[in-house]
Amino acid sequence: MLTAALRSGTAERRAVFEVFARHLPAGRRYGVVAGTGRVLDAVEAFRFDADTLAFLRERDVVDEPTAEWLADFRFSGDIHGYAEGECYFPDSPILTVEGTFAEAVLLETVVLSILNHDCAVASAGSRMAVAAGGRPMIEMGSRRTHEHAAVAAARAAYVTGFTTTSNLEAGRRYGVPTAGTAAHAFTLLHDGERHAFQAQLDTLGEGTTLLVDTYDVERAVRTAVELAGPSLGAVRIDSGDLGVVARRVREQLDELGATGTRIMVTGDLDEYGIAALAAAPVDGYGVGTSLVTGSGAPTASLVYKLVARADGPGADAPMRPVAKRSTGKPSRGGRKTAMRRLDGHGVACAEIVVTGEPRPGGGDRPLQVPLVAKGEIVGREPLAAARDRHAAALAELPATALQLSRGEPALPTEFVDGGPGR
Amino acid sequence: MLTAALRSGTAERRAVFEVFARHLPAGRRYGVVAGTGRVLDAVEAFRFDADTLAFLRERDVVDEPTAEWLADFRFSGDIHGYAEGECYFPDSPILTVEGTFAEAVLLETVVLSILNHDCAVASAGSRMAVAAGGRPMIEMGSRRTHEHAAVAAARAAYVTGFTTTSNLEAGRRYGVPTAGTAAHAFTLLHDGERHAFQAQLDTLGEGTTLLVDTYDVERAVRTAVELAGPSLGAVRIDSGDLGVVARRVREQLDELGATGTRIMVTGDLDEYGIAALAAAPVDGYGVGTSLVTGSGAPTASLVYKLVARADGPGADAPMRPVAKRSTGKPSRGGRKTAMRRLDGHGVACAEIVVTGEPRPGGGDRPLQVPLVAKGEIVGREPLAAARDRHAAALAELPATALQLSRGEPALPTEFVDGGPGR
Repeated sequence: MLTAALRSGTAERRAVFEVFARHLPAGRRYGVVAGTGRVLDAVEAFRFDADTLAFLRERDVVDEPTAEWLADFRFSGDIHGYAEGECYFPDSPILTVEGTFAEAVLLETVVLSILNHDCAVASAGSRMAVAAGGRPMIEMGSRRTHEHAAVAAARAAYVTGFTTTSNLEAGRRYGVPTAGTAAHAFTLLHDGERHAFQAQLDTLGEGTTLLVDTYDVERAVRTAVELAGPSLGAVRIDSGDLGVVARRVREQLDELGATGTRIMVTGDLDEYGIAALAAAPVDGYGVGTSLVTGSGAPTASLVYKLVARADGPGADAPMRPVAKRSTGKPSRGGRKTAMRRLDGHGVACAEIVVTGEPRPGGGDRPLQVPLVAKGEIVGREPLAAARDRHAAALAELPATALQLSRGEPALPTEFVDGGPGR
Repeated sequence: MLTAALRSGTAERRAVFEVFARHLPAGRRYGVVAGTGRVLDAVEAFRFDADTLAFLRERDVVDEPTAEWLADFRFSGDIHGYAEGECYFPDSPILTVEGTFAEAVLLETVVLSILNHDCAVASAGSRMAVAAGGRPMIEMGSRRTHEHAAVAAARAAYVTGFTTTSNLEAGRRYGVPTAGTAAHAFTLLHDGERHAFQAQLDTLGEGTTLLVDTYDVERAVRTAVELAGPSLGAVRIDSGDLGVVARRVREQLDELGATGTRIMVTGDLDEYGIAALAAAPVDGYGVGTSLVTGSGAPTASLVYKLVARADGPGADAPMRPVAKRSTGKPSRGGRKTAMRRLDGHGVACAEIVVTGEPRPGGGDRPLQVPLVAKGEIVGREPLAAARDRHAAALAELPATALQLSRGEPALPTEFVDGGPGR
């Protein structure tokens, strides 16, 4: 595409691409924007080195003029978007990329890869955090997903309210707080559970979490408190009917005087499994598979569509809205502005998407912020800011948004034609 | 775990870990081993650099003796496993890692991440290739999954029979053949479809594939043949009822004399969508989302379990089979040997998993090959070998394995106690 556009003289036309989801995963009430910070890192690093160019030429993927063009490539356009942690709905324009066609089309795959993955994980993670109702949650899904996706998943989970991750690289790269667990293998390695528990206590102190379901839970809890004393930090249960076992363990711990020892549960938990344990004496959850695979929706189904382009080259050429007419895949031409409409009580009631000139009303909260300006990254922020923003965005939604049951999006998306726009 | 094991003196005990799936994804008939080559790359590269060690010390994740131990770390044990491309079933021991507990436990997350991802993609991809019945298939799912997972997915898809990938990095890194497509944005960028088609033909020649569903398919096909002549390579349809549209387009192309022009279809295809087009005049498929997300099973649910360990330190200490007794998560202790039992016609009839000393019968094909010996990689092979092996492994399975309908695994897994083993 790039080579043909460079030859036909259309590569330098100004173009506007928008990222949006035509729909949320079936039954979901809202989506969560995550990965924006990673998009900025990727845009900044998007260059073609000599090895890559040599490969592209050898395989005849591009011709020599295109290779020369790529050698000098750096994105010099503008990007606006929903700030990270924000909620989104069908057709929310969560990212807008403006530049020449050539430079904007090159970013398509990396932008969509990052957002489709991170938004899928965050959209699932947010529901889990809601279900956990403030109880601490460890993200521990690294082993169930691609080794690099695991790092991004831990980051996205933290944005939605997870407390810690077992992924140390996410700690190193993004500053996500980390936590670990002992595995059954550690118990099996030792000459009996007593030997294993003692080894762990000797190293990590009585505040550690002992895994009590390798052999017999009741015996393990007795041994744990005997060795650690009543100040044992926590026990972890990873199998069986977690609610039933947690109740029994709580009673046993209390009888043994370990009233402050917490109970942590793990084992194929998803948002429904977490919600089902709301009334159980559980003090924390470890969540893996269902989080990193988006709990049934492993991709956010975001698309990257050309919505406007210039009639000719140069910054002053008039822009024209464009849209394909493919059956069943409707899209709306023109650059869009988005606002969240709030009612008199500050509760969100609609997602307003305006083509042309926006005229925000008093209760309309603008959703798009500048992320890249003339190729310079301007939207970088600490990850904690995204986490705080998500909590605030969620608090603003109507109560129905927090239902786990399948249903319609919590807000309707309303399209407004604001008249002639850019 | 590592720090505690180093302190308790158990870190140097010999240990055997096995990777297996307790079950296949619901309804699947077989799984496909993929990612083995990537595991070998990861094991070879598994070291701790100064920055990483500084982070681990700063955060107090490990103590100083453990950091010193990690600084010298390189895996010095043995790995055996199913060769890449092989089929697997519940409890097939697809990878066996032997070494000291310390060195083998460290590999758990990266080994599982790679295999859980790549096997999930390959297990879905193989069904799609079966459904396509030999018609060419382009992997084009990069934008629907994490940016690095995309590269691994393209590699796994190639193992299962996909013809090409749109992921250029998979071409560069793993030698997977690459192919591209033009997007609707390319058509929309130009002053009309005619302008766009001409630009593409000028650059890529009449053998290219023109995308014909941006506006009106019938008009686009007419324009395409008018501009390219009857030697036009192919047209692509990305929307609508693909079977119906393909028939109409075939008729139109034939009427226009473009009898050799192929029809390529794309658009949320999975194995069922591909199978439904078996009788349609379709010459190739492009598959994205469903492939890279494992078509409903985005992780292979493989686990990494300690199955045997020594009673004390040193290479000569006697080994002891171990297994946890957690409710609902049964596991079998002891190192296992696996064979595929073939009947008199060379058709597979059972997966034989032997604990203790294996005694293969005449019709038993051994499944495990050496991959790492005393820390040296010995199992590297060209990716084409894995692709050929998958075709052969699939041909050996009973016909029921190739059914797309949900059902039981195509082979039963039979456990044999071969007596005292290693």
